[in-house]
Amino acid sequence: MIYEDYAIFTPGPVKMSEEILAIGAKQTPYFRNDKFSEVTFNCEKGLLKMLNAPEGSKVIFLTASGTAGMESVVMNLLTKDDNALVVHGGGFGGRFVDICAMHEVPHTDFKVTDTNLSDIEALAPKEDYTSLIVNAHETSVGHLYDLDAMGAYAKKNDLLYIVDAISMLVTDPIDMSAQNIDAVIASSQKGLALPPGLTMVILAPRALEKVHDVKSLYFNFKDYLRNGERGQTPYTPAVTIMLQLEARLAQIEREGGVEQSITNAKEISEYFRQSIKSLPLKAYTPFMPNAMTTLTPTDGKSAMDIVNDLETGYKVMVCPNGGAEKDIIFRVSHMGDMDKAYTDVLIDALYDYYKVERA
Amino acid sequence: MIYEDYAIFTPGPVKMSEEILAIGAKQTPYFRNDKFSEVTFNCEKGLLKMLNAPEGSKVIFLTASGTAGMESVVMNLLTKDDNALVVHGGGFGGRFVDICAMHEVPHTDFKVTDTNLSDIEALAPKEDYTSLIVNAHETSVGHLYDLDAMGAYAKKNDLLYIVDAISMLVTDPIDMSAQNIDAVIASSQKGLALPPGLTMVILAPRALEKVHDVKSLYFNFKDYLRNGERGQTPYTPAVTIMLQLEARLAQIEREGGVEQSITNAKEISEYFRQSIKSLPLKAYTPFMPNAMTTLTPTDGKSAMDIVNDLETGYKVMVCPNGGAEKDIIFRVSHMGDMDKAYTDVLIDALYDYYKVERA
Repeated sequence: MIYEDYAIFTPGPVKMSEEILAIGAKQTPYFRNDKFSEVTFNCEKGLLKMLNAPEGSKVIFLTASGTAGMESVVMNLLTKDDNALVVHGGGFGGRFVDICAMHEVPHTDFKVTDTNLSDIEALAPKEDYTSLIVNAHETSVGHLYDLDAMGAYAKKNDLLYIVDAISMLVTDPIDMSAQNIDAVIASSQKGLALPPGLTMVILAPRALEKVHDVKSLYFNFKDYLRNGERGQTPYTPAVTIMLQLEARLAQIEREGGVEQSITNAKEISEYFRQSIKSLPLKAYTPFMPNAMTTLTPTDGKSAMDIVNDLETGYKVMVCPNGGAEKDIIFRVSHMGDMDKAYTDVLIDALYDYYKVERA
Repeated sequence: MIYEDYAIFTPGPVKMSEEILAIGAKQTPYFRNDKFSEVTFNCEKGLLKMLNAPEGSKVIFLTASGTAGMESVVMNLLTKDDNALVVHGGGFGGRFVDICAMHEVPHTDFKVTDTNLSDIEALAPKEDYTSLIVNAHETSVGHLYDLDAMGAYAKKNDLLYIVDAISMLVTDPIDMSAQNIDAVIASSQKGLALPPGLTMVILAPRALEKVHDVKSLYFNFKDYLRNGERGQTPYTPAVTIMLQLEARLAQIEREGGVEQSITNAKEISEYFRQSIKSLPLKAYTPFMPNAMTTLTPTDGKSAMDIVNDLETGYKVMVCPNGGAEKDIIFRVSHMGDMDKAYTDVLIDALYDYYKVERA
């Protein structure tokens, strides 16, 4: 299989644990029965706990990738009568803008750079908004926003607060209750460290009240919520990934809860950043999540060349950027089944590549 | 894990081969590169060959379940200016009717029973249609339609011929060129015997010409076709299932091609049907596919009770029906990694259950 003996530092898919991989090698069971409903309920309970979701929150399980989660949330929660403030600090923010435009949801394309929006109150346009939408971690550049400040702003202005947590859940803190978050989008192949193909939408009661009829069967939240009452989905779920999710949530609990996972990710990302300080690479943004480090070469080297050289010379996969950032940045994920020893594979490769002796 | 040591005869998920399962236990590789593009191209080539698709046909890979394939095909190929004849012989035909209604595609809800539509010319309403839509195998009851006759009818009347082949591909014959089929929907967890989560839409040139702008990001075929040129998808694909699909298509070729798979499925389904002749069960329809046998108890027993008793007493999973058919029918799939020895597990269980000595 391709890349079978490579070390993986891409921000999705990420390295999975042996326990999760083993489930991938089992026959997929039939699912229209109570035993599988229990799996679904366990997944729902685990996610609601992980997010500290308010009482009465529900989870929708979509067989789809993350963009479907983003799009379906906008479709099901917002209408022509809304006005959304959409944070646009990179490619995924831009995608939310496109989604609002596509579904005729009035919105402001709130372009931001060099800020984590801890001062959103001052920066936000002074319009009468009904909703605030943000990719908590703008994965395209590795920028983490201040969910606390944005939540306070959302509460003060009575906004429906929609957070794409796809690439920060499990590695960086998020708390629906404390941060007044009404809807969260999560996906299987990032911090949850499962294969891609499952996207989860977590809806707090305020978001549930906003769910309305949509011109779609596959993304009809009402239908998912109705089926969810008995632990089922309207259409065939990603059964294997659901079983892996159930096991993964139990694994996270067993290993000290999500707080411990966040602590680990913080430790590993700091270890990585500290370890490469003597190399000609610098952080691209001061607002990096634990999930990922985005690096810019300081010696004129092309970032894309570094990515390619690590792949061919060291069997190490880091993540390139496209477009204007192609030569300027590359990304290193700390999500998934990571530890210092595994991270050393990349650190050692970088030192060897730059012909610098690691201290 | 649930149902780990059960024999599986459900029509999706189906029994997978060891080779395919082994890939499920491997780390998911990064995919935005040439090596994964090659995987996508191999999958496309294999599917086009399997379907004998006309020159210039393309495949769209959706991270989604089959209903998304059905809905997206209607969204992308049909408009308010069309008039679709939708074959409705069970739950999945009904779903196509719902999809057309949802997306405001003029259509006739063509309710059919007790026919495989080999006489469609005589039975079809005499309206001016632009499209013919059918679930080749109406899985809810195990009814296979005559794709040849329908294709001839479609050609004669110049109809865009859309076929959901989800639960008959690999076990029953379909030929896009010979049968004038313009669009085919396939899914991972049926005859292809992969985990659920990947749906494929195969478009012949006539269907490609019909692709138009839609009010959807996730189901925008134009975007998939553009990305498909370089072997990529606009959003994260179900990477692991794509790798399994590549291996599965190679496996089918190695074992004699899809014709041999169809021959095997035919042999196994006939073996099963023949073997249970002395039990109080009869075929529900004379138009059964190789993919599945639908049975009705003739001794007044409830079909649902039989399903439950096989599960709890014999660790054998067959498929119940809901609603009005709950007590009347149950379904036995012959899709996937099946042979006579495996089928004997179910046959022996049924004989033991009925306390009849197997001849």
